[in-house]
Order: sequence, then structure tokens, then C-alpha cells
Amino acid sequence: MFPNGDNMFVILVYDVEQKRVNKVLKTCRKYLYWVQNSVLEGEITESRLTKLKMELERIIDKEKDSVIIYRFSTRKYQVIETMGIKKGGEENIL
Amino acid sequence: MFPNGDNMFVILVYDVEQKRVNKVLKTCRKYLYWVQNSVLEGEITESRLTKLKMELERIIDKEKDSVIIYRFSTRKYQVIETMGIKKGGEENIL
Repeated sequence: MFPNGDNMFVILVYDVEQKRVNKVLKTCRKYLYWVQNSVLEGEITESRLTKLKMELERIIDKEKDSVIIYRFSTRKYQVIETMGIKKGGEENIL
Repeated sequence: MFPNGDNMFVILVYDVEQKRVNKVLKTCRKYLYWVQNSVLEGEITESRLTKLKMELERIIDKEKDSVIIYRFSTRKYQVIETMGIKKGGEENIL
């Protein structure tokens, strides 16, 4: 479980039209870590996740874009494996 | 836990060069469900996941491509939320 009982682990993946990519990524990065192309992850509180979703709702076009949020209340049962290069992080912002 | 104790839940995200996208997606779909752009998920056994990784290792360029596999040994602590449209599935293959 998380040190702070209110926290959860989140994986967020988005698939949005090109013109909204920058705004979506910038918004998500205020709350989560960017790990790959259109994928972010991180620990977050319920209230901050609610804020993030409200911000995203104002940006995305619900007829055209897609955002999936996987929420986990513990990381105890989680293993992350990576193949190839690490693509996320500050250094790869275009 | 899973009905079959050997199963796990996996989220796989890839970011590969355009020329390898089709092959990577086709390979991943033999094992997992396609849910969005470059994201697949599903329940899988350890041995099938090993097979999938071996297939991907032969396809991807480890200097240029990235694949991240999130493995979870239980779905008990998981919630999935979606915003916008559903992009994965058979009907959206181009």
C-alpha cells in the first residue's frame, strides 16, 4: 500500500487528435510522469485525479479522442518490464 | 486473483518506428486485446508472456523502439476509467 493511504497508482494512456496532443500531454504532466509516447504514470490522490479529469474533459473532443485511466489501489502486485529504449522523461520533450 | 492461478493481467504499451508498427501490433494481438492506439491489455500466462516477449525481441529495434509491460498478479485492486471514445477492437483496424 501507499505511505499515504489516499494515494493510488495510475497509468494514463491517451489517443487524441494531433492538434490536442500538446495540451493533453502538458496537462497530464502536471500530475503524472511521462513514460512513453502517449503514456503517463504516477502516484496521485483521489482529489488530484478528479482535477486532472476535469481539466482533460475541457480539452478533449469526446467524439474523437480517447483517454484510458487504469487505477490501482496498491503497487504490491505490480511488476514493470521494459524492452528497448526509455522514451519518456524531460529530455525527450520535442 | 485469477481463476487460473498462473494468469496475470498485463497492460502493454509500445512506441516503435512506423515501419514496425503493423508487425508489433499484429504480434501483440495474438496474445492480448487491443484497447487503444498503441495499448493492449489482457490476461495471460507466464509462458505465453515469455513467448510474446521473445517474438517482440526479434521485431523491435532496441536502440529506437520502446515497449513497456505492466504486470499485475491480481485485478482485485484495479479500476479502469475511460474518457471519450473507445478506440480499440476489430472495427478500428486500418
